[in-house]
Amino acid sequence: MESSLDIVAIGDAIVDVIATCEDSFLDARGFAKGSMRLLDAEEADDLYAAMGPGREISGGSAANSMAGAAALGLRAAFIGQVADDQLGTIFAHDMRALGVRFETPPIAPPPPTGRCLILVTPDAQRTMSTCPGASHELTSRSLDERLIRSAAITFLEGYLWGPERPRAAMLEAAGIAHSAGRSVAFTLSESLCLGDRRAGVLGMIRSRVVDTLFGNEDEIRHLTGCAALPDCIASLSADVGTLVITRGAHGALAVENGQCVEIEAAPVAQVVDTTGAGDLFAAGFLAGRCRGRDLRGSLQAGAITAAEVISHFGARPEADLRELVAL
Amino acid sequence: MESSLDIVAIGDAIVDVIATCEDSFLDARGFAKGSMRLLDAEEADDLYAAMGPGREISGGSAANSMAGAAALGLRAAFIGQVADDQLGTIFAHDMRALGVRFETPPIAPPPPTGRCLILVTPDAQRTMSTCPGASHELTSRSLDERLIRSAAITFLEGYLWGPERPRAAMLEAAGIAHSAGRSVAFTLSESLCLGDRRAGVLGMIRSRVVDTLFGNEDEIRHLTGCAALPDCIASLSADVGTLVITRGAHGALAVENGQCVEIEAAPVAQVVDTTGAGDLFAAGFLAGRCRGRDLRGSLQAGAITAAEVISHFGARPEADLRELVAL
Repeated sequence: MESSLDIVAIGDAIVDVIATCEDSFLDARGFAKGSMRLLDAEEADDLYAAMGPGREISGGSAANSMAGAAALGLRAAFIGQVADDQLGTIFAHDMRALGVRFETPPIAPPPPTGRCLILVTPDAQRTMSTCPGASHELTSRSLDERLIRSAAITFLEGYLWGPERPRAAMLEAAGIAHSAGRSVAFTLSESLCLGDRRAGVLGMIRSRVVDTLFGNEDEIRHLTGCAALPDCIASLSADVGTLVITRGAHGALAVENGQCVEIEAAPVAQVVDTTGAGDLFAAGFLAGRCRGRDLRGSLQAGAITAAEVISHFGARPEADLRELVAL
Repeated sequence: MESSLDIVAIGDAIVDVIATCEDSFLDARGFAKGSMRLLDAEEADDLYAAMGPGREISGGSAANSMAGAAALGLRAAFIGQVADDQLGTIFAHDMRALGVRFETPPIAPPPPTGRCLILVTPDAQRTMSTCPGASHELTSRSLDERLIRSAAITFLEGYLWGPERPRAAMLEAAGIAHSAGRSVAFTLSESLCLGDRRAGVLGMIRSRVVDTLFGNEDEIRHLTGCAALPDCIASLSADVGTLVITRGAHGALAVENGQCVEIEAAPVAQVVDTTGAGDLFAAGFLAGRCRGRDLRGSLQAGAITAAEVISHFGARPEADLRELVAL
């Protein structure tokens, strides 16, 4: 069956609260720069009270990717849980305003819509403290089976792998997609490659749930337990049809059918805020594949969209991506 | 008595929702570019649904001025009404994170915290649609008399002159300030210089409520009914100790004790969003006066802070204003 949708994603439905800070602010709290940590509501309130003035911009890893995909002209949908509150309204509006189909009904708070407190240091690195709120209340009841069957790609977010019910929902969605002959993409996140979650993710990959895997170098190393990138690739490429590894300023590479293609990073006049770089890389890469670009062309599309998003605050595209990436 | 506070402002407590749009979007809705209109909740929802993805940044005219004043090192406070909801929490956080004293207790919604839907066209002009919400529920019960008596300047916002109860609260605050030997500043807004409000504002000015008056050229012309700027100045300077007129890209001027000083606008590499230009000009000017600068030096401080705020989205300063304006 012809797909009527290019891509549907399942992920955190979150509004980012972005503030700048000095390195000393992170040091005083023992935050590892570039990391993501989960906070409960009380911890989030404490951190928020200590943070500088914020700007609120819709976020969520896979949601950012769908924002990018839609901005690139893809027919995109998103499944994620917000609460019926002001931040939930903002999240839903921003999705729909970009043309992303978003129909997951909000739940009554509490918990409220999730938010991510993002501290951006002068070197443009982002350190994230997430209060997932309603986001982690997603269950498989929210899956629209027809929607998933209609999409060429089902895109799953690693951050949502942690909590049990969303994880089950994502696995069910992957099953629906595969049974309809569609492909499944999964994006790693720092948090799930550590500790006891690592085995679960690796197990899922070994059982061929994932056709396209996205991760940065660190995540791929933590996941495989290999130090050298060629060993990481060898460890994964038997089970993953397309492996995409982003390397920050060093570019990115993709491995498919034994072929490895590397590209350099796209130039950026000034890196302001690295939040969303990986999310938008995935958007560009998948848009390239959906529109028939080869591996190199798709990597290049990913590099350009990632370069756009790190040139300003917030993880959603601001420039006209279709103009930047002619697909 | 020595003032323990430099400035206290009374104004709208509002979160801005900022989206870019083409001129045709304004034209289709009959919005005059650069204007401000009030919307009820339903109209606001309709417009929001049609708008592009937003970024939320705390706003409010006098609140922006206090953000700037605090960023310039002034001891600043703000009185304004938010509701006990997520946008109200954001507004209060952003005020306090900048060091502005903000203690007005939130009210239970409805109405919710006010928001301003701001459409920024490619020429960086902002067109505002305000849903004032809780903001217009401010009453004189929220005035902290000791706070007002302790502040060298009480700063009043023209947008809040429209609704009856906030207007009464502002007049009462002005009375408290004058009885304590303090000075009162008032910033005009487009909306109150038109129609039947004009006479009321002019009457207030004629009765010497305002020691320092801020307005842009258009506002001053509408208020006085004079076409030529010298006639506007002549009409007002008998009743206003210090008259400050901003002229956009043409700079600004101030008239005090029969002396008129003009300055040019401060250079800006790229004007992105003009929202807050007047608010931050007032902040810089008043900070200059509080720190003993003469009329020209105070105008120059205003021009520099205004130039900073129009170089990015949002009406709150992002750069280190104390570094830009050494007071």
